Amino acid sequence: MKTRAVYPGTFDPVTNGHVDLIERSAKLFDNLVVAILKNTEKVPLFSIEERVEMLEVAVRRLKNVSVTTFDGLLVDLAERCGASVIVRGIRAVSDYEYELQMALMNRRLSKVETVFMMPAEAYSYLSSRLVKEISLLGGSVRGLVPPLVEKRLRSKYTGPKA
Amino acid sequence: MKTRAVYPGTFDPVTNGHVDLIERSAKLFDNLVVAILKNTEKVPLFSIEERVEMLEVAVRRLKNVSVTTFDGLLVDLAERCGASVIVRGIRAVSDYEYELQMALMNRRLSKVETVFMMPAEAYSYLSSRLVKEISLLGGSVRGLVPPLVEKRLRSKYTGPKA
Amino acid sequence: MKTRAVYPGTFDPVTNGHVDLIERSAKLFDNLVVAILKNTEKVPLFSIEERVEMLEVAVRRLKNVSVTTFDGLLVDLAERCGASVIVRGIRAVSDYEYELQMALMNRRLSKVETVFMMPAEAYSYLSSRLVKEISLLGGSVRGLVPPLVEKRLRSKYTGPKA
Amino acid sequence: MKTRAVYPGTFDPVTNGHVDLIERSAKLFDNLVVAILKNTEKVPLFSIEERVEMLEVAVRRLKNVSVTTFDGLLVDLAERCGASVIVRGIRAVSDYEYELQMALMNRRLSKVETVFMMPAEAYSYLSSRLVKEISLLGGSVRGLVPPLVEKRLRSKYTGPKA
Amino acid sequence: MKTRAVYPGTFDPVTNGHVDLIERSAKLFDNLVVAILKNTEKVPLFSIEERVEMLEVAVRRLKNVSVTTFDGLLVDLAERCGASVIVRGIRAVSDYEYELQMALMNRRLSKVETVFMMPAEAYSYLSSRLVKEISLLGGSVRGLVPPLVEKRLRSKYTGPKA
Amino acid sequence: MKTRAVYPGTFDPVTNGHVDLIERSAKLFDNLVVAILKNTEKVPLFSIEERVEMLEVAVRRLKNVSVTTFDGLLVDLAERCGASVIVRGIRAVSDYEYELQMALMNRRLSKVETVFMMPAEAYSYLSSRLVKEISLLGGSVRGLVPPLVEKRLRSKYTGPKA
Repeated sequence: MKTRAVYPGTFDPVTNGHVDLIERSAKLFDNLVVAILKNTEKVPLFSIEERVEMLEVAVRRLKNVSVTTFDGLLVDLAERCGASVIVRGIRAVSDYEYELQMALMNRRLSKVETVFMMPAEAYSYLSSRLVKEISLLGGSVRGLVPPLVEKRLRSKYTGPKA
Repeated sequence: MKTRAVYPGTFDPVTNGHVDLIERSAKLFDNLVVAILKNTEKVPLFSIEERVEMLEVAVRRLKNVSVTTFDGLLVDLAERCGASVIVRGIRAVSDYEYELQMALMNRRLSKVETVFMMPAEAYSYLSSRLVKEISLLGGSVRGLVPPLVEKRLRSKYTGPKA
Repeated sequence: MKTRAVYPGTFDPVTNGHVDLIERSAKLFDNLVVAILKNTEKVPLFSIEERVEMLEVAVRRLKNVSVTTFDGLLVDLAERCGASVIVRGIRAVSDYEYELQMALMNRRLSKVETVFMMPAEAYSYLSSRLVKEISLLGGSVRGLVPPLVEKRLRSKYTGPKA
Repeated sequence: MKTRAVYPGTFDPVTNGHVDLIERSAKLFDNLVVAILKNTEKVPLFSIEERVEMLEVAVRRLKNVSVTTFDGLLVDLAERCGASVIVRGIRAVSDYEYELQMALMNRRLSKVETVFMMPAEAYSYLSSRLVKEISLLGGSVRGLVPPLVEKRLRSKYTGPKA
Repeated sequence: MKTRAVYPGTFDPVTNGHVDLIERSAKLFDNLVVAILKNTEKVPLFSIEERVEMLEVAVRRLKNVSVTTFDGLLVDLAERCGASVIVRGIRAVSDYEYELQMALMNRRLSKVETVFMMPAEAYSYLSSRLVKEISLLGGSVRGLVPPLVEKRLRSKYTGPKA
Repeated sequence: MKTRAVYPGTFDPVTNGHVDLIERSAKLFDNLVVAILKNTEKVPLFSIEERVEMLEVAVRRLKNVSVTTFDGLLVDLAERCGASVIVRGIRAVSDYEYELQMALMNRRLSKVETVFMMPAEAYSYLSSRLVKEISLLGGSVRGLVPPLVEKRLRSKYTGPKA
């Protein structure tokens, strides 16, 4: 049995919490597709090309992990790439409820299963939104995101010369 | 990569919610070990032999699933049987919090990963405790447990002649 | 349409939070049956006769409210007394989850509907357990329970002479 | 005693979860007014006329149910139409907390009581937002909404010729 | 040991729940700085000057409380004004989760500690958002906000002549 | 202003999560009394003398921290030792709800305020119960409890010769 899993998200930008979850999932499944959602309701800080680049650099060393992009229904993507399982990280109770709702709906729309995993507790408070907020306000995000993301956040908020 | 998963529980008795989760997990992992905890704080209604029998009958048709028993630390069992992942079902927010706590502790004690899955929503309210309570009070548990369990619950609460 | 509701509980003892909920429910439904569960897992502080008496005194002024006792399944009681709705109070998220589970199960076992209501916020922290604990430790429960209950709690914990 | 209840919402659009709750409430109260909120912070997908039509078709067979629209305070509407109780559906813990807050505030603003009911568990993951999202992304919402709503969603997202 | 605490918020506008928390905190710490966040994602109803004025009037009688404004990171403000502790009010589970996340992040960014306190239960449902909503819809907010805020809300929504 | 705080618990046994919280609280308040509850519903693993000794050794280096024992109402202890604030750690949503209930009740019974603090995230899953369970099952609790507690747990479960 070869099991392929898909790990979807906006990754705007990827954090060390995401990377941690990717590493853990890659040990459980034969193949992991990290899938970046192209169009979201909110305008992302990073373009889809930037988000792909930052993720690819962050997961380069993991041989059974690939990065792709998608729009449309997640279950259609899962079907297209032959994934039988969706991986989602949960940190908080409020995450969990939303995730449960989505997982039940996805199960109704297709046969794909959802499994939930936990990031390391050191990353339990970490989110892309928080990382952007801290960067915007001039705080340091070292250790919270991969080095390339740290660099890119700095240029976004202070300009290339800063 | 061959991934073996362990699905631990008291299974006193196994419900259709458990069976549903076993079926879903058995599709994601190469091998699934259903592990019945022998000694719990509370005296179980069914002996360990009865619980093994009811589970074995319930999962007989699933070729990559086996049933075992354990006491001691769950992570030690996982290690002994070569499992790299623990499967847990979550129904409610309160489940989730306790499960999170156990999963973080297990991750500290070993390298085993925990994944959370959802039972079908029709079983979201189902628990072994509730099934025993209904049986004890004379209600019907048909459709909530496998047929053999229904029969055994009836003998427990009304005697062999009833 | 005459709607009869049942409000079940252990009422060991009745608190002002219970009384508040009974008053609110009695305004919405034609008839309200307060149903005291006879046998619980834990030994109650007050006998079933004492619990009936304290409740009857507390709701005497409400003309469409009656007090009864039951054991067995709640849905069987509802059917026997012609109630189409079960009333439950919810204070906290953890209450809510357990209540949801019971309500779904009751809906499966019968056609009876469950509605949830809130006690006044002044009683949001109040429970029979807490009231007994405070009494046992010598604190005052004035304003938290009806006067008769206050008196009875005092005799329980200090003896008739105290 | 004739009890009139009001079931408020945006109904953009009505789902089978809403219809299920309307059916259950209509059995408990003499009269049920389904009240559509006209102005919300977000621009609705369907106009107020479209939302009224879809609801009226969906509840036509229920004799003691009527549909109306409102803006302003919900408690003012309740008073105007002589309702002594507000009915709200709750699916998740996060719903529940917001609903509790609103119910406490409404109780402060008027004498109207709020009762909470549960949709069938098959609809526990269903929301108007999710239905619109799936439709927009080209997924099928058959079985999740009444037939007229399914048709209208299709025209919205693909045009009248599609 | 002189402990200075900071109580941050948007205060758009200050409610009696905020004032209650300020009074309680002012008894525990030698010094309390109420810090109004200048720039938020959403356009506030009241200008920063109006929010300062309403707060200053509301806390005038508390000798060890001062009002300030800030933008940028909260931990930088705490450091600047020599505060070793951040005070936050929590009402609901969903508040609590967000607050926990922020507190963990703030602890990572600095040495400042966060303590959580509860408003009086009479204010447990109260929020600036709800107060604005009720005012906008023509309801009365007497008793929910300080008198000056009540007056200012009335002028905002009905004009100076109304 | 001299503020004295009390940190109550069963401490059966003290964990590194407790010690972490004691250290943090001792920085915020002039004086901290760690108060061990003598009589609990469950028989403790360690006697009150053992629990006092383990705590005293663990907090010896903190000059403004003292250890005491109590039974009866917590608010009576607070009054007796002149504490105006109770410190409680919260890890999970379910903790939080119970704690809220107790804090509201304590506020009703006295003027003492309750503040909630968070343990370091590395200890977010840690509890006395879990530590005892792991020890009993033969797992290592190094790093989860102070060294003396680790030693005492070992003797409890394996005897003095082990």
